[in-house]
Amino acid sequence: MGKEPGGRVTISDIAERAGVSIGAVSFALNGRKGVSDATRERVLQVADELGWAPASAARSLAGARTDTFGLVLARDPHNLGVESFYMRFLAGLESELSRRSYGLLLQVVPSQEIEIATLKKWRRSRRVDGVLLVDLAVDDPRIELASEPGALPAVVVGDPAVAKGLTSVWTDDATSMRQAVQYLVGLGHRRIARVSGLAPFAHTHIRDEAFVEEMASEGAEAVLLRTDYTPEAGASATRHALQSDAPPTAFVYDNDVMAVAGLTVAMELGKRVPADMSIIAWDDSVLCDHTFPTLTALTHDVVAFGAHAARRLFDVIDGAPPGAFLDSTPRLVIRGSTGPV
Amino acid sequence: MGKEPGGRVTISDIAERAGVSIGAVSFALNGRKGVSDATRERVLQVADELGWAPASAARSLAGARTDTFGLVLARDPHNLGVESFYMRFLAGLESELSRRSYGLLLQVVPSQEIEIATLKKWRRSRRVDGVLLVDLAVDDPRIELASEPGALPAVVVGDPAVAKGLTSVWTDDATSMRQAVQYLVGLGHRRIARVSGLAPFAHTHIRDEAFVEEMASEGAEAVLLRTDYTPEAGASATRHALQSDAPPTAFVYDNDVMAVAGLTVAMELGKRVPADMSIIAWDDSVLCDHTFPTLTALTHDVVAFGAHAARRLFDVIDGAPPGAFLDSTPRLVIRGSTGPV
Repeated sequence: MGKEPGGRVTISDIAERAGVSIGAVSFALNGRKGVSDATRERVLQVADELGWAPASAARSLAGARTDTFGLVLARDPHNLGVESFYMRFLAGLESELSRRSYGLLLQVVPSQEIEIATLKKWRRSRRVDGVLLVDLAVDDPRIELASEPGALPAVVVGDPAVAKGLTSVWTDDATSMRQAVQYLVGLGHRRIARVSGLAPFAHTHIRDEAFVEEMASEGAEAVLLRTDYTPEAGASATRHALQSDAPPTAFVYDNDVMAVAGLTVAMELGKRVPADMSIIAWDDSVLCDHTFPTLTALTHDVVAFGAHAARRLFDVIDGAPPGAFLDSTPRLVIRGSTGPV
Repeated sequence: MGKEPGGRVTISDIAERAGVSIGAVSFALNGRKGVSDATRERVLQVADELGWAPASAARSLAGARTDTFGLVLARDPHNLGVESFYMRFLAGLESELSRRSYGLLLQVVPSQEIEIATLKKWRRSRRVDGVLLVDLAVDDPRIELASEPGALPAVVVGDPAVAKGLTSVWTDDATSMRQAVQYLVGLGHRRIARVSGLAPFAHTHIRDEAFVEEMASEGAEAVLLRTDYTPEAGASATRHALQSDAPPTAFVYDNDVMAVAGLTVAMELGKRVPADMSIIAWDDSVLCDHTFPTLTALTHDVVAFGAHAARRLFDVIDGAPPGAFLDSTPRLVIRGSTGPV
């Protein structure tokens, strides 16, 4: 069917299958005007079906370098600014990219489907030199996409277990969670709530599992509350738990703003922190140091984490073998919000 | 000296002045390998001196479109995540860009000098279709840069007074500040502190001026405290003012995290909010709705503001005449942190 020796798909293959001229395929794949939207769509669809990718030889020509990394965030734009994690992570990426005169192509999209379509588009048009994959799910379809021949170089920001052999940069959340549980149990807490983030994320799953296991091994009662990371959801989960028949005496929140919301609910309900209720925030942020009382938190340097991820992507592009790189194990910083039961 | 009729600088001019071949100039200007770093630097310097810019005719060819907007933030990466403004603004930009399959090239740089160098580099290489200019200073050098012949299309996110004829998208901060002052004076406050942001920013200046003027016209005493937007600085300014001989009875903070820090300092010093001290935050964020008491705030939709700025940049690129577009006048949302003296 016109394939080159070795089976690489050519634009002739695509033209034949789509029933259009080679010129039209070229226009469509390069995102230029000169073809109708319908033709462009058909060409792109056929190109995807055939697994077309630009020759890697062409990529390595100096002129084909874009000096740009790509990052897609599949998050609700209105919630994105709520926690400081991503802005700090972006700033860290940028610190490394700017040193090398690289730019970051950022796209915020409403769903993972559109995230994948965006990654495919970037691959087709070689719009970026490589991509960072974040907010990984268990069995994330992006891993398969990034493992295909002709895929853009990628670094997974997340646990090696989900990266499936791709280069990953990760924080050891399970160990941190166990330390937090041991600390609270050591203070005498026997019923502890984890106010967790979005269920599909792998890191949510990893923290859930470590929490439940460690609580079980300590013979303590684990209360698992699911939220969407917003302070509204954090406040609601806290209120519900505190007004139950058997309220937890300690809460571990999956971000900083939910911990602040939890502290507020405690105050509204007349609970004293930490005398009646202990609070731990994850991640830490400057916010945790400016509440009353200040918030005990699991902390790591998110800016450095972003810079580290960028460095590993440069390494991948330079041909480094894949690896799983531990960035840090978030450590417990004890402030005013935790104490004995 | 080899200039084309009409005075446009050509790459021949640059080659002649730099003493290198036309090919070398082409490589250097297009960011390709094939010339030494020293030659590249000399060529770029000469190109800047001569005011070289690619022909606008070439720009308008479909193939020269990058489908990318550029944004440079000259901020300390470690502080960037502290307030939610930029992440929400970025999310708003993205919502509009994604609809049109555009990307955002984001660069975080440590100084305004490097911001300007980055903008010049983008202009030379036509790396983006247009730029958004934020954090404008009074007499900002970027305005001149964006007004030169051959400049990249630009939208100023800031007051028309600083945009000097370039298209601007702005919020009427002066009116909002006056409303906040009138509200506090109406509650009986006669000594009010403004905990303001970074001095060089035009919007800091505009808010300062409106605050001082409105306080004077009300015959009330204005206390102006300067910070760098961090909660540390907000806390320190608040502590200092509350421990002075004549403590203010109300504080207007220039962002949300400083207001939270101010609330914490009040609690530490045994001041009741709002009985002893009223607090207003600017901007509003979900955080303000989750402190105890909740924070009265000047609020506007930052995500929509970002989307609006992006739309105006598309218009500029499409040839719309320059204009000053009011996005909104931040309005006072009264919550639990303000009350009578």
